[in-house]
Amino acid sequence: MFANTPKPPYYAVIFTSTLKADDPEYDKMADLMVELASKQDGFLGIESARSEIGISVSYWRDLDAIKQWKAQTDHQVAQSKGKQQWYSHYITRISKVERDYHM
Amino acid sequence: MFANTPKPPYYAVIFTSTLKADDPEYDKMADLMVELASKQDGFLGIESARSEIGISVSYWRDLDAIKQWKAQTDHQVAQSKGKQQWYSHYITRISKVERDYHM
Repeated sequence: MFANTPKPPYYAVIFTSTLKADDPEYDKMADLMVELASKQDGFLGIESARSEIGISVSYWRDLDAIKQWKAQTDHQVAQSKGKQQWYSHYITRISKVERDYHM
Repeated sequence: MFANTPKPPYYAVIFTSTLKADDPEYDKMADLMVELASKQDGFLGIESARSEIGISVSYWRDLDAIKQWKAQTDHQVAQSKGKQQWYSHYITRISKVERDYHM
């Protein structure tokens, strides 16, 4: 689904990843992370797609909201499991959305 | 594939879309656009995935490189066909990558 973001400026965390293998536990964890992220102060929405690689873009009010989500306890556990078990590679990019255009 | 981007800062164009229907002509056009974009001055790479929605993130040296790609003739034709024929909805977000982390 599309994220219903407000007028810029706001922040986007672009997370690109490849998985070692399909794992239903990963899918469950990913769903849980979306649920928990959406309860965080400053969360604005998330957009995700996966084919050869996975791309999840989460949107945030400011850098402080991103920092707090990064440090959230359950998310820390998920990040650690991700590095150890699930991801073969990933890149996280923190970016500031300056403009947007809707169809 | 992952985009092999340089050290920040650089720009990311986050393009999220839904298609009206599967159309092999769209896939061909999308491939051609990646090929043409990669010849543009200031192009740094692109990452794409599609499942329920499609997300393509293209990376650029600066806003001027993005502007020139937006105005490129073949790309203009593709944008127009996209609006008329292919996309049911899309959002384009122009963002400045401030930091990145690699696994």
